[in-house]
Amino acid sequence: MSKQAERDRLVDLRRELHRHPEPAWREFYTTARIVEELERIGVDDLYVGPDAIAEDERMAVPDDDELEAWYEQAREEGADEEILQQLAGGYTGAVAVVEQGENPEDGPTVGLRVDIDGLLREESTDDDHEPVAEGFRSEHEGAMHACGHDAHATIGLGVIEAVKNSDFEGTLKVFFQPGEEMIAGGKSMAESDHLADVDYLLAAHVGLDHPTGEVVAGMDGFLAVSHFRAEFEGVPAHAGGRPNEGENAVQAMATAVQNLYAIARHEDGATRVNAGKVGGGTATNIVPEEAFVEGEVRGETTELKDYMKERAERVLESAAEMHGCEVEITTNGEAPSAESDDALVAIVGDVADESEGVEEVIERGELGGSEDATYLMRAVQRNGGKAAYVGVGTDHPGGHHTATFDVDEETLPIGIDVLAGAIAEIAAERP
Amino acid sequence: MSKQAERDRLVDLRRELHRHPEPAWREFYTTARIVEELERIGVDDLYVGPDAIAEDERMAVPDDDELEAWYEQAREEGADEEILQQLAGGYTGAVAVVEQGENPEDGPTVGLRVDIDGLLREESTDDDHEPVAEGFRSEHEGAMHACGHDAHATIGLGVIEAVKNSDFEGTLKVFFQPGEEMIAGGKSMAESDHLADVDYLLAAHVGLDHPTGEVVAGMDGFLAVSHFRAEFEGVPAHAGGRPNEGENAVQAMATAVQNLYAIARHEDGATRVNAGKVGGGTATNIVPEEAFVEGEVRGETTELKDYMKERAERVLESAAEMHGCEVEITTNGEAPSAESDDALVAIVGDVADESEGVEEVIERGELGGSEDATYLMRAVQRNGGKAAYVGVGTDHPGGHHTATFDVDEETLPIGIDVLAGAIAEIAAERP
Amino acid sequence: MSKQAERDRLVDLRRELHRHPEPAWREFYTTARIVEELERIGVDDLYVGPDAIAEDERMAVPDDDELEAWYEQAREEGADEEILQQLAGGYTGAVAVVEQGENPEDGPTVGLRVDIDGLLREESTDDDHEPVAEGFRSEHEGAMHACGHDAHATIGLGVIEAVKNSDFEGTLKVFFQPGEEMIAGGKSMAESDHLADVDYLLAAHVGLDHPTGEVVAGMDGFLAVSHFRAEFEGVPAHAGGRPNEGENAVQAMATAVQNLYAIARHEDGATRVNAGKVGGGTATNIVPEEAFVEGEVRGETTELKDYMKERAERVLESAAEMHGCEVEITTNGEAPSAESDDALVAIVGDVADESEGVEEVIERGELGGSEDATYLMRAVQRNGGKAAYVGVGTDHPGGHHTATFDVDEETLPIGIDVLAGAIAEIAAERP
Amino acid sequence: MSKQAERDRLVDLRRELHRHPEPAWREFYTTARIVEELERIGVDDLYVGPDAIAEDERMAVPDDDELEAWYEQAREEGADEEILQQLAGGYTGAVAVVEQGENPEDGPTVGLRVDIDGLLREESTDDDHEPVAEGFRSEHEGAMHACGHDAHATIGLGVIEAVKNSDFEGTLKVFFQPGEEMIAGGKSMAESDHLADVDYLLAAHVGLDHPTGEVVAGMDGFLAVSHFRAEFEGVPAHAGGRPNEGENAVQAMATAVQNLYAIARHEDGATRVNAGKVGGGTATNIVPEEAFVEGEVRGETTELKDYMKERAERVLESAAEMHGCEVEITTNGEAPSAESDDALVAIVGDVADESEGVEEVIERGELGGSEDATYLMRAVQRNGGKAAYVGVGTDHPGGHHTATFDVDEETLPIGIDVLAGAIAEIAAERP
Repeated sequence: MSKQAERDRLVDLRRELHRHPEPAWREFYTTARIVEELERIGVDDLYVGPDAIAEDERMAVPDDDELEAWYEQAREEGADEEILQQLAGGYTGAVAVVEQGENPEDGPTVGLRVDIDGLLREESTDDDHEPVAEGFRSEHEGAMHACGHDAHATIGLGVIEAVKNSDFEGTLKVFFQPGEEMIAGGKSMAESDHLADVDYLLAAHVGLDHPTGEVVAGMDGFLAVSHFRAEFEGVPAHAGGRPNEGENAVQAMATAVQNLYAIARHEDGATRVNAGKVGGGTATNIVPEEAFVEGEVRGETTELKDYMKERAERVLESAAEMHGCEVEITTNGEAPSAESDDALVAIVGDVADESEGVEEVIERGELGGSEDATYLMRAVQRNGGKAAYVGVGTDHPGGHHTATFDVDEETLPIGIDVLAGAIAEIAAERP
Repeated sequence: MSKQAERDRLVDLRRELHRHPEPAWREFYTTARIVEELERIGVDDLYVGPDAIAEDERMAVPDDDELEAWYEQAREEGADEEILQQLAGGYTGAVAVVEQGENPEDGPTVGLRVDIDGLLREESTDDDHEPVAEGFRSEHEGAMHACGHDAHATIGLGVIEAVKNSDFEGTLKVFFQPGEEMIAGGKSMAESDHLADVDYLLAAHVGLDHPTGEVVAGMDGFLAVSHFRAEFEGVPAHAGGRPNEGENAVQAMATAVQNLYAIARHEDGATRVNAGKVGGGTATNIVPEEAFVEGEVRGETTELKDYMKERAERVLESAAEMHGCEVEITTNGEAPSAESDDALVAIVGDVADESEGVEEVIERGELGGSEDATYLMRAVQRNGGKAAYVGVGTDHPGGHHTATFDVDEETLPIGIDVLAGAIAEIAAERP
Repeated sequence: MSKQAERDRLVDLRRELHRHPEPAWREFYTTARIVEELERIGVDDLYVGPDAIAEDERMAVPDDDELEAWYEQAREEGADEEILQQLAGGYTGAVAVVEQGENPEDGPTVGLRVDIDGLLREESTDDDHEPVAEGFRSEHEGAMHACGHDAHATIGLGVIEAVKNSDFEGTLKVFFQPGEEMIAGGKSMAESDHLADVDYLLAAHVGLDHPTGEVVAGMDGFLAVSHFRAEFEGVPAHAGGRPNEGENAVQAMATAVQNLYAIARHEDGATRVNAGKVGGGTATNIVPEEAFVEGEVRGETTELKDYMKERAERVLESAAEMHGCEVEITTNGEAPSAESDDALVAIVGDVADESEGVEEVIERGELGGSEDATYLMRAVQRNGGKAAYVGVGTDHPGGHHTATFDVDEETLPIGIDVLAGAIAEIAAERP
Repeated sequence: MSKQAERDRLVDLRRELHRHPEPAWREFYTTARIVEELERIGVDDLYVGPDAIAEDERMAVPDDDELEAWYEQAREEGADEEILQQLAGGYTGAVAVVEQGENPEDGPTVGLRVDIDGLLREESTDDDHEPVAEGFRSEHEGAMHACGHDAHATIGLGVIEAVKNSDFEGTLKVFFQPGEEMIAGGKSMAESDHLADVDYLLAAHVGLDHPTGEVVAGMDGFLAVSHFRAEFEGVPAHAGGRPNEGENAVQAMATAVQNLYAIARHEDGATRVNAGKVGGGTATNIVPEEAFVEGEVRGETTELKDYMKERAERVLESAAEMHGCEVEITTNGEAPSAESDDALVAIVGDVADESEGVEEVIERGELGGSEDATYLMRAVQRNGGKAAYVGVGTDHPGGHHTATFDVDEETLPIGIDVLAGAIAEIAAERP
């Protein structure tokens, strides 16, 4: 296939995924299309749905009605029925394995992680928003690929094809991960068996305020984070007639909020806490029976996040007890901190320097947010392997997560080149 | 008309109103039907919609979309278009005036207040729920006459007919009041001009745990109450990246909740406070920009309610200021306390003792809740007049405000007899 | 002895006690003088110190140094050494028993409770303050008989003499109770064996805004009350260097205070709560290791007080837990509510009507505060006996507990007459 | 004088100061002795008491009784009466000026700041605590030189003598600063005129966990800090009888404490807050009229401290308003952050490398606490001058501020050598 034809195919695929953004554990259409592509390309092993992850480690799984609605939508949009059935119950995502070269077992196992989910936000309808102008705006009202994961999935597939055409010798595993936006999927993928033999792992993200042509060889500065939802359950009562018979869930929640923000700062570095969304009660004259807090804690390191999490739980539980309520605390998403290894960063930097379309290579960058690729990075590092998180610049008109976000499609071949090149070089150097 | 025919007509009317429950300021169908009946009966003066109330004193008026939806529904259900137009914008309710006897101006002006609104709650679908069995269950999904105001409106009309057929000499004014359930309508009716010349006022309620055949000649124990909604507006910020740039509306709300419940008890009697419904924030990782509290304060007396209200506002405003937020506090409903005058209670008791169907007369009872008839009672008492709140027992299978509430229709003629009889006797005795 | 001589002796004794005010469990001089008088008068049984009370039920006992200091002072002031030794360790108070008449065992057992403690407050030095003018101002700096318990003790002794000279037949027990001001002594006296056989109990108080010549035959309106002290113990840390290592006792205390005042009001009647004295921490730059709350809860009934106490303890314990602290809660004083029995009130009223110096008898009055005579009243009532709390008016220039409080000494013979008369009449009538 | 004699004199002086520790604005004996020494040595200008500082900028000045007590003590201990009179009212401290060389006006003005105050803490009585063994333990019970400022004052005097004997050409100003421990004196000295012409400033501290023989050429990491005291004044009321008449200062304080700790973390770096000492109320049954918080805020930079201070004041003021109280907030001590200039650090390092007794020179160290020398450093830097904070190691058996702290007196000549040497070299190099 000509280079242009190749590029067109990537663009078509990316646009198809862009038209079908799906949030965490609802990536039915997306996973089905990825699997179809993988079957077309031909891989040595393919793990889909429950086989791709540690089933018990999914976080923030929506309820059955919600899952069913998105599943049906994917079916109506023409997703492959047989593949879909493997995803039933919200088991989205896939792991593809390619064994390459004469003696793949002599080479290392290199992993690439790309995330595939969209966001629950409306996409712009402005005529100068490229997806509008070019007719590939989201067809799912209220959902949008506003962070470039459509490009990530496309690049993941492109890398497989490129590696198959390269002189890479070893095993390549590509992790198509669901639920990154809610930091809900990384853990389940990291705790599957598929990471166990990975010697080197790359993860990649487009954009991040870097323009097309820039590559950041190693991203760091991931804040460890944990999202929680606490549900308080008390006892309702008529507020005028029998106030003493109530056990007030809103008082419990308010006490918790006051004390969550008041968790002591830590000598070892930055911490964060937020009660981002709260609610409770039903009517003016009823002592509130129910209340909730959805919040998060963060830390510059995983230890700092754990410190905050432990203190937050103590606050939530004591506040419930103080007001005669039960509280149920759910972790809705979580990611540790992580760092890119120098050795891989060096290789990525060197390869990028030589890659077509790359004009500037930045050695190290700071993400300054959270990302659950860190789960996979740490799993590999814990086994003695190495990992790096690569930034692939792309001109993006709107900021990440905004209605006018879009990626420059020139980034697709650049990303594929740099990552496939780095994978080959890693196998060659085994740093 | 025969007594049975008369009774049947009352029952038919009550059932028609029961099928069309409408909440505060949305009593379009209800008001239209009442006005039609009044036109049929023939009254000397009739004030409808904005003419029936002090327009600026309505509380908890829903937004235009909501009003429009209920208005349209009434129109589609066949409410008189001409009358409806007078109600546009949520000006429901009516005041009917009858001048009776040879020299009505020599007699006193006696008022009767009945409320006409329904509740926003689902009605039971059980086959043994009388309205289901007899085919007059609510046709408005999610709304229900669960407190007997359908019977009140019917009794109000019946009293006019009965008084017209009696030897009452004087002026009778019947106040068909909207929005009692949200204590949203009483004030606007009390502050209209129509109360200015009322010498004696009766208000009535069916049920209240008294069975058919019991009459409570004078109800007291109305807690003064005020409903409020406080909206906090702060400044959003990314909770991980720029927590210091936020002004946290949820922290303001939580501080307010903690301190609202902590308002000092009062030496003069019982007070109450409740933050019945709260909420705030949009996402786990955003410092919350908005939050609200819907709550209420009560007092055994109006002064005690005012004490609570003043302290509550101080708490809400200071909590906002503490967290760099603006707060807007709206009063969504309000009612003072009131007491029934001995002289009227005595007359009602005597009349009831003689009335058909009345088996037991209780002199005084305690409501122990809130009711905005108190606004009208106090307006009359302030002018030197007298007022009483009468309880008319009815067997009700479910409690007030529950899905299986219903009234024993035998109550309709009993209520009419007692009230019309008392009105006549009041005019005779002028206590 | 002449009436005047008798009266002079009472005045002298009262003034001597006034010069030596002693607070709870420190009434060493006072008890010793009372015992000396009892020995002079001659009683049939005399229980002193630990024999007068249930030893384990004392509340708010001061520490050994404090006890020792007051003990030494009493010794230096000439209190009888032998008696003092019986009081060592803060076992003050006495119970005197008189068996009177030919067959005392045929008569009832009537009790009289008088309290004997002073207050920790400075007495006025104004020249027109009678104790200054007449030279019997407190000789204990910082302590004062500012509530008339010097008169109570004197009246108690006077009643014994009067009863011995009367035709009373039966057993009289006079309870000289320590620690009323801190509601710290009533329980220990009530739970001694001495109450077990008491058929009728009178308690008395002078003043209470009633002038000399008025008698209130039955006082009610005792709020049940419980005083507590909660001590929080956390972990200190340098607030700048290691804030996370602290467990902050002041945060625990502040959370508790906020939530104590926010305990839900009760449908059954008035409740109260107060965090009257708080403190914590040592230095600006140390995360506070210790904090305390001294507070109280009250209720219109004992049940309401218990409701408040239970909720308060839940708040204190959960607040400690929330902040990683231990909390120790001590009850420092407690009194139930109680009511005077009609039958005794009637007798006291009748006797008072006939007594010299009594100009007005009020049947019932409201105390509106707390008093631990209620423990003794309830103990008697629980056994089927009857009790009444009698108010004996006295002109008092300053309010109770103020620096210029004083009693009109004319009250002494009036009180003795009314109480001794009532005791005799009770024995005669056995109501 | 022989080197040994010189050393002995330094040791004697240091021990004399050690025996007379005096806290902020009470350094009467200490200042008097310093002035006596300066008169002995002979300086060109000497500013004492109010002449040494900006009078209005003193913070945390104790009340007159407290000042008077320490003043009298100093007098009784033999401090020079004439000098003492200059210090009356708590104007302690001194500035000494030496003009040296043939043309001092051609040379630079170099400043040295030493602090002279002690701490309010008990000194150890252990026999192996050197001051006990050698007989120079604190003679002021409850006060102690537990941070080495006795050594600082001694070094300051030693440096003057050393400089007078050196070939330094220019002006030397030595600032004997009161009230460092409470960060109460630095500002008043920095805002005097004496800093205006200082081109270079050195400040020094012994110990800081560095052993004898180590010198840290430039200390950084001073957290900016502000100490505050907030006094809430409400309205008292009887908690049982009239709770509603109170305006509860303890509730205001508790609300403030909860929200102080909950001030949002800042993106720009570390912040701290502590409510280190709190109290309020007088009695269990009185709604508290008064309460206070003594606390502090810190920041990695002065801006961060200011952010915290501004938010803290908002919290304190709103909490007062919420509970109907007045609040008065006093700043009791304050210090900005500061950094040592490279050019001076280099000179100090070089000189130290050559100094006798110095075994190791550390270029940069972190203080990690607060110090109000920063006021003087910033004043000089703001005028275009340079400043450095020098650490002079000393073996100290107990930690700073503990009962067994002591300094190795070998440090005295080392500190003098390094500082005097650096002063001379600065004048020579004029970096």
